Amino acid sequence: MTFPTPLTGVVPPVCTPLTPDRGVDVRSLVRLVDHLVEAGVDGLFVLGSSSEAAYLTDDQRRLVVETVVGHVAGALPVLAGAIDMTTPRVLDHVRSVSAAGADAVVVTAPFYTRTHPSEIARHFRLVASGSPVPVIAYDLPASVHSKLPPGLVLELAADGVLAGLKDSSGDLASFRAVVTGAREHPGIGGFSVLTGSELLVDSALALGADGAVPGLANVDPHGYVRLDRFCRTGDWGRARAEQERLCVLFGMVAAGDPIRMGGSSAGLGAFKAALYLRGVIACPATADPQIPLSEDEVERVGKFLAGAGLL
Amino acid sequence: MTFPTPLTGVVPPVCTPLTPDRGVDVRSLVRLVDHLVEAGVDGLFVLGSSSEAAYLTDDQRRLVVETVVGHVAGALPVLAGAIDMTTPRVLDHVRSVSAAGADAVVVTAPFYTRTHPSEIARHFRLVASGSPVPVIAYDLPASVHSKLPPGLVLELAADGVLAGLKDSSGDLASFRAVVTGAREHPGIGGFSVLTGSELLVDSALALGADGAVPGLANVDPHGYVRLDRFCRTGDWGRARAEQERLCVLFGMVAAGDPIRMGGSSAGLGAFKAALYLRGVIACPATADPQIPLSEDEVERVGKFLAGAGLL
Amino acid sequence: MTFPTPLTGVVPPVCTPLTPDRGVDVRSLVRLVDHLVEAGVDGLFVLGSSSEAAYLTDDQRRLVVETVVGHVAGALPVLAGAIDMTTPRVLDHVRSVSAAGADAVVVTAPFYTRTHPSEIARHFRLVASGSPVPVIAYDLPASVHSKLPPGLVLELAADGVLAGLKDSSGDLASFRAVVTGAREHPGIGGFSVLTGSELLVDSALALGADGAVPGLANVDPHGYVRLDRFCRTGDWGRARAEQERLCVLFGMVAAGDPIRMGGSSAGLGAFKAALYLRGVIACPATADPQIPLSEDEVERVGKFLAGAGLL
Amino acid sequence: MTFPTPLTGVVPPVCTPLTPDRGVDVRSLVRLVDHLVEAGVDGLFVLGSSSEAAYLTDDQRRLVVETVVGHVAGALPVLAGAIDMTTPRVLDHVRSVSAAGADAVVVTAPFYTRTHPSEIARHFRLVASGSPVPVIAYDLPASVHSKLPPGLVLELAADGVLAGLKDSSGDLASFRAVVTGAREHPGIGGFSVLTGSELLVDSALALGADGAVPGLANVDPHGYVRLDRFCRTGDWGRARAEQERLCVLFGMVAAGDPIRMGGSSAGLGAFKAALYLRGVIACPATADPQIPLSEDEVERVGKFLAGAGLL
Repeated sequence: MTFPTPLTGVVPPVCTPLTPDRGVDVRSLVRLVDHLVEAGVDGLFVLGSSSEAAYLTDDQRRLVVETVVGHVAGALPVLAGAIDMTTPRVLDHVRSVSAAGADAVVVTAPFYTRTHPSEIARHFRLVASGSPVPVIAYDLPASVHSKLPPGLVLELAADGVLAGLKDSSGDLASFRAVVTGAREHPGIGGFSVLTGSELLVDSALALGADGAVPGLANVDPHGYVRLDRFCRTGDWGRARAEQERLCVLFGMVAAGDPIRMGGSSAGLGAFKAALYLRGVIACPATADPQIPLSEDEVERVGKFLAGAGLL
Repeated sequence: MTFPTPLTGVVPPVCTPLTPDRGVDVRSLVRLVDHLVEAGVDGLFVLGSSSEAAYLTDDQRRLVVETVVGHVAGALPVLAGAIDMTTPRVLDHVRSVSAAGADAVVVTAPFYTRTHPSEIARHFRLVASGSPVPVIAYDLPASVHSKLPPGLVLELAADGVLAGLKDSSGDLASFRAVVTGAREHPGIGGFSVLTGSELLVDSALALGADGAVPGLANVDPHGYVRLDRFCRTGDWGRARAEQERLCVLFGMVAAGDPIRMGGSSAGLGAFKAALYLRGVIACPATADPQIPLSEDEVERVGKFLAGAGLL
Repeated sequence: MTFPTPLTGVVPPVCTPLTPDRGVDVRSLVRLVDHLVEAGVDGLFVLGSSSEAAYLTDDQRRLVVETVVGHVAGALPVLAGAIDMTTPRVLDHVRSVSAAGADAVVVTAPFYTRTHPSEIARHFRLVASGSPVPVIAYDLPASVHSKLPPGLVLELAADGVLAGLKDSSGDLASFRAVVTGAREHPGIGGFSVLTGSELLVDSALALGADGAVPGLANVDPHGYVRLDRFCRTGDWGRARAEQERLCVLFGMVAAGDPIRMGGSSAGLGAFKAALYLRGVIACPATADPQIPLSEDEVERVGKFLAGAGLL
Repeated sequence: MTFPTPLTGVVPPVCTPLTPDRGVDVRSLVRLVDHLVEAGVDGLFVLGSSSEAAYLTDDQRRLVVETVVGHVAGALPVLAGAIDMTTPRVLDHVRSVSAAGADAVVVTAPFYTRTHPSEIARHFRLVASGSPVPVIAYDLPASVHSKLPPGLVLELAADGVLAGLKDSSGDLASFRAVVTGAREHPGIGGFSVLTGSELLVDSALALGADGAVPGLANVDPHGYVRLDRFCRTGDWGRARAEQERLCVLFGMVAAGDPIRMGGSSAGLGAFKAALYLRGVIACPATADPQIPLSEDEVERVGKFLAGAGLL
């Protein structure tokens, strides 16, 4: 389908259900997509952080895109991450996911290497010139270890290099600079400014963001769709109440013991445990080398679901 | 060939010569290997940081290993990096480079993801159990954003998971803990402790390291072979003089303007410019999105070579 | 005066005007206080980051508190920073500023030392037990290099250790956790949750914050007072417009050349240049070793003022 | 006394013994100084990190300098830290410790503030121009959060601003650049390059350092004096054996449980427990808010002492 300009609304970063032996569970993935689409989301983002893209092999990545694109069949736009260290490797993924039908690619700055701001700009320009589909910048300093400056994002937007920004930096002031900058720049039109936050969707939409890409929307897509609708109609009181409810639900990411596992394990493990407990996916396994949640920890996730009326 | 236990001496991390359009320049790569082997190095490490592994596509990585392994034909051990974000992706590279003939693989902790120490241990155990060749841990905090604790390295060595360590952390005190720990632990034998430093090879060998993997050995392999021999014979005065000479030569990595480019661009650009000026490779190009050295900056590299009598 | 529970509204962190030879310019300080009070601010915070507390000697700090407390004479509450590395040194400042009449002290976690979370908790407990006035926690990771976890803040609030939080972390999601946590915790009453952001005051107040401590309020106190009033009356459209106007004005902090000076120099230099150009203070000097703005840079600050109708 | 040019040998950073109620224990401090001087050390450094300078009030700092300077009475040089955030506050300490008789001051780059390299240079120039005694730069990135570049140190040395460097960065390659740069620069004479490492004293002296400032020398000054003498006579084999013995002893800094306390608490707590167990000081207390070692942990420290024959 044609990529919307701008893309707006709720665009969940789709989890990648795995089998007990860590293959992609295609049937669960299809069920998860149905679960999201039926809740009324506005797009799907596969191969992002919540999708465990960093853990999936190239074959698995291709299978995920083909499965989701094939299943939604143009009903809504599918964005795909092209997550790798540098330009040539990213371009390989861009070719692969766009061939598999992705409507746009989501790309970070180079990581692992020590990269200068001018090289980050060059990276996005080279990726865009080699991509058959629009390029969304993915700002994720916790993983990439550099922050995309708003000025750079706006410059690349004005030059037609970038079609949007997915901002998971946690820095709402910097995000606001892109939102207002994109709105006021005469040469920028149709640019999508999306927040990756689960916890500040109302704040982001209130200051003018186009949409949200919250990992927790896997677990409660109806909640985020409601939140988005409240914001669009200016019902800020109910938006805030819905957002605060989702903040409480998000507490599940701390169910895993931080003495025993990392943040990825705990957060992704909780989302998958919740999807498993809700009957959406068949197995809560996360990819290696992540430590799985214990039975007790899964039970704690269940309590968050029960508290939110989702069980 | 059988991987030496331990591997000792000078093991250059082999640069990857590129053509002007950023393909692997196989003829230059072969000439570079000859340049190193003829200087008397003890092994070769391909697909490391100095090889621009982070910038090479999977096809290019395979071509590099096949070329080098085919050319040296068992005359000396070839180690290959299997550099990727997490266990499943690293295992794909391990299978690929070992099928192409690498005698050992060099593997970092997970990066991009937020990984707990227990997950790092699990990562190395899973990689080793899936690898047909010995696994060397690669400690590179500047890229990986975590440091391998000496205690973990020694535990994995004692359990037969790791066959060695390539330490590019710059933390010689931590390195020393591995060197003396490996020497004194009854269950550890044949473990290779290698420094990735260009500037402290004499210090590392004096405190008991097995060898060195200095990027600058691409440019001056004879210098590092001499330095290694001085250290082995306890001629510390001449070792220090040779090391100090090489420290001056290493100054070339600052030829690139830090206002204009990143550390990778400047360092790798200087090594490749030097190999080009010395007539070893046909083109000094570095991979995208790195900024190339200017003519003036290449000239500055030339002055370092001239000062060292290498032109 | 009695410290309000909670303190709400606009509480500017008062700049410290200096003479050309870097003494405290008491007359300018009094004029600045008048400028703020007349604009309708709700409290004053002296000896914070915008006050250059880190650069002021103990004698200068005392003079600042005495001057401001003496001048406002109880008309509105005066908070004073007690900024130092560890508990015993902080307690010396607490005694000094409270003796000089401060109504509350503002205290960071220990810095310079490597401090464990349990030691941060112990620090605040010891400071509070030694302080004759309420203690506000100051979360400033850019300076302190640790982040106060919301759970710790709420625990210390519930125990009566902390009377408020000034959050300059830039992490609005974490800030929200304190705001909602303090509201819902039965044992917490009158706790002041204040944002240190210049750019997200509308967002912070919309999610329930009590007030704001924006450095830019030195330059345009009327703007922040208007913004606060719009938020309190639920006029979110005009609040957003006012906030966006202040965001543009805040652009002045980039007037100083980042190649030539640090962020403190550029930001504080711009605020003081603006106060000087507006005729509030007699000299725009910042403390040593900060690099002063050039004439051209001061002129750029002037353009921001002109654009905002403040000249 | 006149400050030696260069200062060489072992210069322990003297611990500050405290009473159970956290006052300076002057009698224990004098005993500790005697313990060090009788072992043959070449100088004393008070008010550094191992002295808990960050935790001492200004009154306590003054008492420490007066006590130590008074007791050694010119028999060996006394360096004193002037540790604070910025130039004006550092200058207050410089005046205080030099008035109390310190022969040189030890000064870090600014911290807490966001400081540009040019401001770091300006800081040292201003401090030196206001100091009646020589200024030694203190490179401690773990506390200061910036690293002193070798080029800057050498520039300041050549201009007569700095009389030496105490390098606790852990970056021996950067340290080497200062050592060889100072040796070869025609305008630099008598500059003291001192390592702050406990674990690499042999390496540092082998590459040309003037001396060492190891915190562990409080516990085993005889060991470090022996090590220094072996290095000076070129007896590298015995030097390495002595250094490795001291590395084992240094393991005591891990006696404190990292789940329960920070690195400062564990390291300083271990040194003080060891001095207490050896009968040098009357009480092992560390300053607030550090968590004290438990009885079990103190017992573990004792085992390290026993293993080294120091009980």
